[in-house]
Amino acid sequence: MEKKYFVEKGAMVKFRNGADFCIGTGRMGLALQREYYEQLKLVQDEIGFSYIRGHGLFCDDMAIYQYRKGWKDGKVTVEYNFTYLDRVMDMYQELHIRPFLELGFMPKMMASGEQSVFYWKGNVTPPKDYSAWIALVQATLRHLIKRYGRKEVLTWPIEVWNEPNLTSFWKDADMKEYFKLYKVTAQAVKAVDEGLKVGGPAICGVDDENWLRSFLKFVKSNNAPLDFVTRHHYTSYMPQWDGHYGYINLHEPEYAFSQLERSREIVDSFPEFEGMDIHITEFNTSYIPQCPIHDTNLNAAYVAHMLSRLGDKHASYSYWTFGDVFEENGVAFTPFSGGFGLVANGLIKKPTYWTFAFFKKLKGDCVHRSEEAVVVRKPGDEYRGLVWNADGRNTGEELDFTIALPVKKGVPYCLLVKTVDEECCNPLKVWHDLGEPANPSKKELELIKESAKPLLTTTRFEEGTGLVSVSLHLKKNALQYFELIPAAITGDTGYSYERTLQQVIEDPIEE
Amino acid sequence: MEKKYFVEKGAMVKFRNGADFCIGTGRMGLALQREYYEQLKLVQDEIGFSYIRGHGLFCDDMAIYQYRKGWKDGKVTVEYNFTYLDRVMDMYQELHIRPFLELGFMPKMMASGEQSVFYWKGNVTPPKDYSAWIALVQATLRHLIKRYGRKEVLTWPIEVWNEPNLTSFWKDADMKEYFKLYKVTAQAVKAVDEGLKVGGPAICGVDDENWLRSFLKFVKSNNAPLDFVTRHHYTSYMPQWDGHYGYINLHEPEYAFSQLERSREIVDSFPEFEGMDIHITEFNTSYIPQCPIHDTNLNAAYVAHMLSRLGDKHASYSYWTFGDVFEENGVAFTPFSGGFGLVANGLIKKPTYWTFAFFKKLKGDCVHRSEEAVVVRKPGDEYRGLVWNADGRNTGEELDFTIALPVKKGVPYCLLVKTVDEECCNPLKVWHDLGEPANPSKKELELIKESAKPLLTTTRFEEGTGLVSVSLHLKKNALQYFELIPAAITGDTGYSYERTLQQVIEDPIEE
Amino acid sequence: MEKKYFVEKGAMVKFRNGADFCIGTGRMGLALQREYYEQLKLVQDEIGFSYIRGHGLFCDDMAIYQYRKGWKDGKVTVEYNFTYLDRVMDMYQELHIRPFLELGFMPKMMASGEQSVFYWKGNVTPPKDYSAWIALVQATLRHLIKRYGRKEVLTWPIEVWNEPNLTSFWKDADMKEYFKLYKVTAQAVKAVDEGLKVGGPAICGVDDENWLRSFLKFVKSNNAPLDFVTRHHYTSYMPQWDGHYGYINLHEPEYAFSQLERSREIVDSFPEFEGMDIHITEFNTSYIPQCPIHDTNLNAAYVAHMLSRLGDKHASYSYWTFGDVFEENGVAFTPFSGGFGLVANGLIKKPTYWTFAFFKKLKGDCVHRSEEAVVVRKPGDEYRGLVWNADGRNTGEELDFTIALPVKKGVPYCLLVKTVDEECCNPLKVWHDLGEPANPSKKELELIKESAKPLLTTTRFEEGTGLVSVSLHLKKNALQYFELIPAAITGDTGYSYERTLQQVIEDPIEE
Amino acid sequence: MEKKYFVEKGAMVKFRNGADFCIGTGRMGLALQREYYEQLKLVQDEIGFSYIRGHGLFCDDMAIYQYRKGWKDGKVTVEYNFTYLDRVMDMYQELHIRPFLELGFMPKMMASGEQSVFYWKGNVTPPKDYSAWIALVQATLRHLIKRYGRKEVLTWPIEVWNEPNLTSFWKDADMKEYFKLYKVTAQAVKAVDEGLKVGGPAICGVDDENWLRSFLKFVKSNNAPLDFVTRHHYTSYMPQWDGHYGYINLHEPEYAFSQLERSREIVDSFPEFEGMDIHITEFNTSYIPQCPIHDTNLNAAYVAHMLSRLGDKHASYSYWTFGDVFEENGVAFTPFSGGFGLVANGLIKKPTYWTFAFFKKLKGDCVHRSEEAVVVRKPGDEYRGLVWNADGRNTGEELDFTIALPVKKGVPYCLLVKTVDEECCNPLKVWHDLGEPANPSKKELELIKESAKPLLTTTRFEEGTGLVSVSLHLKKNALQYFELIPAAITGDTGYSYERTLQQVIEDPIEE
Repeated sequence: MEKKYFVEKGAMVKFRNGADFCIGTGRMGLALQREYYEQLKLVQDEIGFSYIRGHGLFCDDMAIYQYRKGWKDGKVTVEYNFTYLDRVMDMYQELHIRPFLELGFMPKMMASGEQSVFYWKGNVTPPKDYSAWIALVQATLRHLIKRYGRKEVLTWPIEVWNEPNLTSFWKDADMKEYFKLYKVTAQAVKAVDEGLKVGGPAICGVDDENWLRSFLKFVKSNNAPLDFVTRHHYTSYMPQWDGHYGYINLHEPEYAFSQLERSREIVDSFPEFEGMDIHITEFNTSYIPQCPIHDTNLNAAYVAHMLSRLGDKHASYSYWTFGDVFEENGVAFTPFSGGFGLVANGLIKKPTYWTFAFFKKLKGDCVHRSEEAVVVRKPGDEYRGLVWNADGRNTGEELDFTIALPVKKGVPYCLLVKTVDEECCNPLKVWHDLGEPANPSKKELELIKESAKPLLTTTRFEEGTGLVSVSLHLKKNALQYFELIPAAITGDTGYSYERTLQQVIEDPIEE
Repeated sequence: MEKKYFVEKGAMVKFRNGADFCIGTGRMGLALQREYYEQLKLVQDEIGFSYIRGHGLFCDDMAIYQYRKGWKDGKVTVEYNFTYLDRVMDMYQELHIRPFLELGFMPKMMASGEQSVFYWKGNVTPPKDYSAWIALVQATLRHLIKRYGRKEVLTWPIEVWNEPNLTSFWKDADMKEYFKLYKVTAQAVKAVDEGLKVGGPAICGVDDENWLRSFLKFVKSNNAPLDFVTRHHYTSYMPQWDGHYGYINLHEPEYAFSQLERSREIVDSFPEFEGMDIHITEFNTSYIPQCPIHDTNLNAAYVAHMLSRLGDKHASYSYWTFGDVFEENGVAFTPFSGGFGLVANGLIKKPTYWTFAFFKKLKGDCVHRSEEAVVVRKPGDEYRGLVWNADGRNTGEELDFTIALPVKKGVPYCLLVKTVDEECCNPLKVWHDLGEPANPSKKELELIKESAKPLLTTTRFEEGTGLVSVSLHLKKNALQYFELIPAAITGDTGYSYERTLQQVIEDPIEE
Repeated sequence: MEKKYFVEKGAMVKFRNGADFCIGTGRMGLALQREYYEQLKLVQDEIGFSYIRGHGLFCDDMAIYQYRKGWKDGKVTVEYNFTYLDRVMDMYQELHIRPFLELGFMPKMMASGEQSVFYWKGNVTPPKDYSAWIALVQATLRHLIKRYGRKEVLTWPIEVWNEPNLTSFWKDADMKEYFKLYKVTAQAVKAVDEGLKVGGPAICGVDDENWLRSFLKFVKSNNAPLDFVTRHHYTSYMPQWDGHYGYINLHEPEYAFSQLERSREIVDSFPEFEGMDIHITEFNTSYIPQCPIHDTNLNAAYVAHMLSRLGDKHASYSYWTFGDVFEENGVAFTPFSGGFGLVANGLIKKPTYWTFAFFKKLKGDCVHRSEEAVVVRKPGDEYRGLVWNADGRNTGEELDFTIALPVKKGVPYCLLVKTVDEECCNPLKVWHDLGEPANPSKKELELIKESAKPLLTTTRFEEGTGLVSVSLHLKKNALQYFELIPAAITGDTGYSYERTLQQVIEDPIEE
Repeated sequence: MEKKYFVEKGAMVKFRNGADFCIGTGRMGLALQREYYEQLKLVQDEIGFSYIRGHGLFCDDMAIYQYRKGWKDGKVTVEYNFTYLDRVMDMYQELHIRPFLELGFMPKMMASGEQSVFYWKGNVTPPKDYSAWIALVQATLRHLIKRYGRKEVLTWPIEVWNEPNLTSFWKDADMKEYFKLYKVTAQAVKAVDEGLKVGGPAICGVDDENWLRSFLKFVKSNNAPLDFVTRHHYTSYMPQWDGHYGYINLHEPEYAFSQLERSREIVDSFPEFEGMDIHITEFNTSYIPQCPIHDTNLNAAYVAHMLSRLGDKHASYSYWTFGDVFEENGVAFTPFSGGFGLVANGLIKKPTYWTFAFFKKLKGDCVHRSEEAVVVRKPGDEYRGLVWNADGRNTGEELDFTIALPVKKGVPYCLLVKTVDEECCNPLKVWHDLGEPANPSKKELELIKESAKPLLTTTRFEEGTGLVSVSLHLKKNALQYFELIPAAITGDTGYSYERTLQQVIEDPIEE
């Protein structure tokens, strides 16, 4: 496939880059783990997300909600233990990431039923006593404000529950009960501090018509607080399962984007809510954590396309998840078990990691956006771009991408290209070729990680004609990030690169 | 060019790998610098040389030899200050490297003349008083033994002076005076401890017939101690200078090797010295520290060839030098100023760094050695090999190298290849393309370093026929290091790599 | 109290120092946590235990034992997942500590009942199918041998279950069932590799007569494998509870030691087992993890006394535990919650940490052992000693300890003393004085840690008479570690310490 | 001695704390060393000075000013090599410290004579060609602006030369020649950028009347640029020398302060310069780098007094120096060789280090300043104070210091005290007691460093009467830093510190 573009001087194209706003995570209890910390640190050091969102704040392994029986009177007292919560939040602060708080699931001692979700058994039943729930929510928020300061905590959005429109996440997907939960919770939040921001309904991305519209009607008629709307977005068809794994096909991109349109329309159809922020608090290709697609270069290229568009109508979109410390369907048997993460266990950067690392750098004035590329201009007539070739049909078709960019006249330029494709940055393949070791040895792990880096190449444009034509050749499922930067030779006295290359081996001579 | 080889089961080929025995360094005073430490740490972490040798132990910046004038009587006393020496030796111990001690040059206060060598003005005249020299040598050795222990210091070889056969390094290249220096020094060393090992004459690699033979005769007739013989070895023709730089051509390899033969013959011609260790205490391609060849991929490939042969007749051969903290001809103006180092300033690994890193791994039974490759077998029918394509004539000729290796029957294998060539691991080119910045910015430095890593690829051999044919394609001036390792698929339940790759984008369907 | 001792030249006193052999730990699942890792690293960096022992290898959070239901046939298959086990063992290897493996508790899916122990609900019922248990044990051991090497794993002792003589740890404390478990497990272990070492019965330190004797009889008559005997040892009376905490009194030391005698006698009464190693696989003062005694200086001094004696008749004794990442009775509300650890949460070294750090250094020939001190001689007439003043009656009585030690004649000595007492190294007090913060702020934590270091002082003995009289003054509950080392002044030219101190402020003078 | 003070509610006392503004350093060439970096890092991590000032920018070891002879024509060209300068400045940026640039000394190739100062031979003669000097200054500043940005470099003050009023620092202390140098240099600086700040005359603190007045007259009449005035300040009498060391007595403090008054008066006597900033670009007790006073606790206490007053009339005062990587009188033979540094070689914090570390924390509203203390109030009725007892007469007199501070009523407080005195934080004594080792072993160094930390103790004030009386007892030459902070007990359920301490050893009882 061949694509050619020409950018006019001063061109400006609409593009909102929110790729580094929020990222998903395994349940909060896992944030105590060392591997979790190291994966998140890896991600933050290079990409640096602003927010992190996941489940499990109130689950029992966080140990916040406690019953204590008196030694003498046997009287039961409720206590809040913030030891682990503080440990997690301290770590987030250390890594310069803020929580996008999801309130849930239900502490067992407070739950009205036994139903649970996931391998780790998050209780998904309503509270048996809403006042206990309110007390828990408020005690937690007050504690956070005391420890981290009001100013800081006011920047932490608060979402009520997760995917209540699915029976697996909320008993019977009982809409009325959720609305009740939402209302009392949102009011409880605002009672702690009017400045706190609260939202919902965190629905899985179906049922907009029913759930989202009803939710907004409820909020409106009950005058419940609502600062933002949340939903999720996955773009794959149903998996076919074999053993531990589910294999999927991906939605055709336009079809995928179209599925999001409806939410925006519904929200905007309420004058009260028109233009209100919609946060996609989860998105990914497949919605199952054992889907091998997540580890592939195709995933990286496909997600690049998503990131080029999702900011158009959504305040944020949180890739689910930063890493593979994750136990929703149990503990992974291998490092490439199709987990959601940008990083595989063992601190291996997957191809999609680079999608985010590259988007992170696409800040500036957008001069080009197409189905396979985004290019921005930086001050000083520099450019940065990302090109992708999501070979979704597995045809092996390669992409020849050319874009002519207006630059400073008379100035030589350097084109810097970082390539991530199935040949040069494909840790999954190396792991496979090594025999798919369940727990790679230290040496194997180092090899896999060594293979998980983009290939960097450079070219010079000496002419200085005021136009540089950047030509990139992308193999299937490749990403190519480029920078075009002014690079006049400062040349040290007597140094000649050409002459350097002309030093050769010579047969014996008389000296 | 095409090369095909077949290795028989149980084959054994002679090859002694001493590539990691000793490495050269800038003068000892520079070892106090932070950049020096970090470059040496980098080298030691991955390659781990056993010894380090350089000049300047007794130069004034090490501040060992001190005169003090009494406040009242004005009487002058000699003092030894080991503050810096200990700081350097402590650092070497920390980095698990031992000094190959070179005794020299002359402290100014002890020198008989003013003549000096290098930008940093090492005094190269004989002592005005040999007893002061002896006292200095002995005090230094006794101090080292006290601080680091006799057992440790006995493992540190001691070489007397440097290249006394050149007028620039020893006043008038006065042979008689050097022999005197050698004798009194060697005797002084042995007087400290008979177990200490001492050698010379550290000649620049010419004049064997004259200098080496005369030296051995002198040692023999004077019954002077001698534990080993030392000489140097550079393999380039005279440089052509332009500004700060000298451009050279390289000796044809066989010619270069032949120049070393004579030293071995001369030594062996003395029954008393037959078979005595010869240490090449310096070697490199060019002998000037501003020769752009050192920074090239050609240098890496050419040196690979040298490392495959130098161990045949020499106890050791010390590449001159590990890093570019070096001031012999002044302070480098840029990071790629043609310094001797494996590492350029800014902690950039040059291509030749990888030659040593790869040779480091070639431990095992050698099964193949040719003009372009060395292959060794490890326990368990694994192989490691290094192949190089020193395109000395700059013709761009590529190399197709094939070698058939006997392996375990019925076992699939993984072939792992690390490539260093002008396209994928050539920091010099990236620096040039960025405009040859004299002092790269932090960002530029990161890019250059990012480009200075081998490209890793893998392939599987599933058949298990008992023979694997490794085929490598090397571009000009390429190095390819490979490992061939057994890699049966351990395969997790339901995991299929093929199926993983078949997940595709699908048009909208009814689910 | 005043104590005076005189050590004769060449004196030798019996003392076996096994303080650094083994250390206890919270359940294995907690070893995944970052705080656990950092606490263990702290301990290993300074003390360096050889082994670590704790519960929970087979508990469900380690996720080893898995059931999988086929997607189509619904058939259930047993699978073993070693992802977490390897992660923990890799970390132990990284920190140079080996597991003292305790086989237990029961995976839920394999258990015959529901009974559990601890907040974290370790199942304590026998397997419903012993063959499944055997398969699990063997698969685990075979996996470990494959990953870490036979030679390594053969050094890992294996203990069958924990405290089966208590109903809380083994259903009904059913002796017959435990013997069955022991026998099949020990045989299963040996079937994997005869070289593996297996032992039991890991009893809580009561019921020797009944349990230990019966166990040995059983082993003997059943010819079951047995390589060593294990038991536990706590030295406090029953706690009095208030809220989260239990307060205790300590056993008088001689009474405490006497309780251990019986085990040795019972073992030795069997000719087959005479002299067999007894490992105290757990010991501490109080046996509850919320006992404030653990955080005190009294605990440090009392444990010093224990460490001076426990090696007499026991192969090892494992302090329960290295750190406070521990959840047996729930998650601690504060850093000083009376946990067992040498290190409190937040990486605070408790006084007892220093007891172990000091004992670590008491290697050499013992020249003195008494109720309040151990002193050893090192080569070169150096000494190291530890003195304690366990003010068990809270009378505030101080200890004046004097010991005359024979040293090199004519050589000045330096006495170096490190003091840990309630005034100079008492982080509990600092935390209390700061208001007992549940989760200390970063600043508070730094202050607490700053206070948790011994006070170091030095004195010189210039005379060189061949005898140094070391006089130490210990406040209540103090530890004093000392070193007596030769220290001749090497004196730089013109340097005078006395004159240095005589430099004073002077009124204006004419210069 | 007893001192009692009472602070009224709302009290405010004048005190300007500039202790952390600027610090001195050994010559710039030494900044390339690893030990230099690590010492500066230590200082910056805890104290964090804003600026650093020292000599040697243009000395030959910085290698900035270069002559190159053409290979063919033999023509000499001047070149500027900024390799080392950038390496040093990059390191300063990394450590968040800015240069206070001192322009000097003279590159040998540019000098009009041979006269030099120091062991490292800084040339102190005027340029043989002022235009070459101007070119060097301007090229250097332009380079710095290009690399570090104009905005940044404009914050770097520029001082012309060092102590020209001494014959050792400026040939013949030729005033007229210095004024010429000043004028052309200041004009050259402004010609690069009007925003750059330039000053002088950097005189050693004598000859005010002559030098300072003449300088200001010259500047005024010549209309030379002048943004600030600089001078130095040392407070000791002439040393008495013995071997390597000079012993001194200190100026009585009031006498010392009085010597500074004159500079302020002279500056203010010129209407044009009234109120102009005076920077004391060097100060210390003794002005020789081998004066044992620098390593003592007396120095720490005496300097505390200086820091409490120097800000009254001076814009800044730069302690000479941060560390002991320093070669003015040669290389130190031992770590306690009386160097100027806050940190001794081997990364040992001297007592005076703590004076600066404590002053760093004295930010807030001053409520008390006396001859022995400074106390400031922080928001929330917290206090911080520093008390010193400079026992200048060596009488051993101790200080009882009491200060009553108004606090929040009803709130308990915690008093936190950090003590540095001759007993608890005196590394010099520990080093001496260990035998004054010239180059301490690793173990000795660790002991010395372990001894170089303040002793931290805490006390509670439970009453809450609205007034806390802080009573401190200072041994001779002690520093005591304190914080008084609200500390209500948050008390966990059932936790009692008193009861914790009442757990005792009990004789055997029936349980």
